[in-house]
Amino acid sequence: MIVVKVGGGQGIELDPVCDDLAELLAQGQELVLVHGGSHLTNVVSHALGHPPRFITSPSGYTSRFTDRETLEIFEMVYCGQVNKNLVERLQRRGVNAVGLSGLDGGLWRGPRKRAVRAVTEEGRTRVVRGNLTGRVERVNTPLLELLMDSGYLPVLTPPALSDEEEAINVDGDRAAAATAAALGAHTLIILSDVPGLLRDVNDPQSLVHRLSPSELDDAAQRYAQGRMRIKLLAAREALQGGVRRVIISTACVSSPINQALQGQGTVIEAEEVAV
Amino acid sequence: MIVVKVGGGQGIELDPVCDDLAELLAQGQELVLVHGGSHLTNVVSHALGHPPRFITSPSGYTSRFTDRETLEIFEMVYCGQVNKNLVERLQRRGVNAVGLSGLDGGLWRGPRKRAVRAVTEEGRTRVVRGNLTGRVERVNTPLLELLMDSGYLPVLTPPALSDEEEAINVDGDRAAAATAAALGAHTLIILSDVPGLLRDVNDPQSLVHRLSPSELDDAAQRYAQGRMRIKLLAAREALQGGVRRVIISTACVSSPINQALQGQGTVIEAEEVAV
Repeated sequence: MIVVKVGGGQGIELDPVCDDLAELLAQGQELVLVHGGSHLTNVVSHALGHPPRFITSPSGYTSRFTDRETLEIFEMVYCGQVNKNLVERLQRRGVNAVGLSGLDGGLWRGPRKRAVRAVTEEGRTRVVRGNLTGRVERVNTPLLELLMDSGYLPVLTPPALSDEEEAINVDGDRAAAATAAALGAHTLIILSDVPGLLRDVNDPQSLVHRLSPSELDDAAQRYAQGRMRIKLLAAREALQGGVRRVIISTACVSSPINQALQGQGTVIEAEEVAV
Repeated sequence: MIVVKVGGGQGIELDPVCDDLAELLAQGQELVLVHGGSHLTNVVSHALGHPPRFITSPSGYTSRFTDRETLEIFEMVYCGQVNKNLVERLQRRGVNAVGLSGLDGGLWRGPRKRAVRAVTEEGRTRVVRGNLTGRVERVNTPLLELLMDSGYLPVLTPPALSDEEEAINVDGDRAAAATAAALGAHTLIILSDVPGLLRDVNDPQSLVHRLSPSELDDAAQRYAQGRMRIKLLAAREALQGGVRRVIISTACVSSPINQALQGQGTVIEAEEVAV
């Protein structure tokens, strides 16, 4: 079982991802797709007069500030446009895709984080309220298995459902990691608009090809910024949940999933347990 | 089995519909929900600078002209905002709702109508091309049954999937009728912002309480305009498909589904077959 997460950054083409998925499924590979939609959400938010806001936590993680209006725009783009666009493209390739959000069937559940600490531009820390965000703690694996056993490819997207049954924005990479762990997936592939973890964010040649789980935290501290820090956090969570291999690679090549499986990007493999 | 369609007209409240659904499900009633989103699609289309266009066929049916840009806005509103909003409200009531579009799992399939004839404001008939519309001919009932047998409530919305695997706008009332027929539902309830078929569209007191199937076409010709003509067409299709009873009633009351089941609105019942 492989869980593939494809990001929603600007310029990411979905057709090569769908081509690879169709090919792997035809070979009998079990798969789940998780996707983002951040760039298009920003575009639509601006167009609808509700420009995006981002907050940075004291530990350096950046996330979208999600009030109810933002959440509804988020749902329009992630669950409406991107999810259904992917399902349509996959159906055209003979893949019987079923698109679900984390709300559907309570697929992704977890606690809402009511008060979030954020660092202001002046470097001060303040508490931000009214943020509809949280994280995935529980995955409805029976629903996913029900669909997969009948030949459907699940295509999953935030939001998730909070413990109080409200829609919450959750990070897609971490939701993919939770899904991979819950399903007992062997591999999690995180595709985005960067080639992997770079020692120097401005130099694509500085790619870190291999990382051991024990090097993860140090590498995150030293090299990772912005979204990459969250990807490494997701990688750590997946590995802690039993996933054997996490590959952080680029979506912006032909055959991005196959290239990742052949070792493209940053590969983080669980240590072999001594017998 | 009851299929409930709730329209997307301005001012329709979803909470009373969700309350009734939760109550009926708790009583053991088998249900499927189908919904619209037309008013909000108009609002978002205007806001995004792509105002809605409607065309009227020579036989008097009005429908949304759906180019690709409109279809994507349509998907944002129907599959994103409205569908996930309903799923969230239902989850909050303890109903394990799963939202699906007609694309997901090829749930609703049928032919695209490539060239549509439309009447211009000057009364001339012309052929309109580039319209991504069609109708539902086949319903993936095994997928619906798979979900219902596991305790999920399917919450369904256009678009559908054309025979060429492209997303097409289909009428929600007729899609609900096709779904009710395919599932062998006993009753189809079509809720909207009007009380039912009115002899005089400006007089709510002129409600037609009962219609026999044989009176449908005549009533449609004499009294029905705009959306109501399509509702009566959907009613005819449902009855022809074996549905025993179609109720066209208002969503704008407390307990709209229960009121419809108690005889509110226009009730069209299949003739009893003589034994």
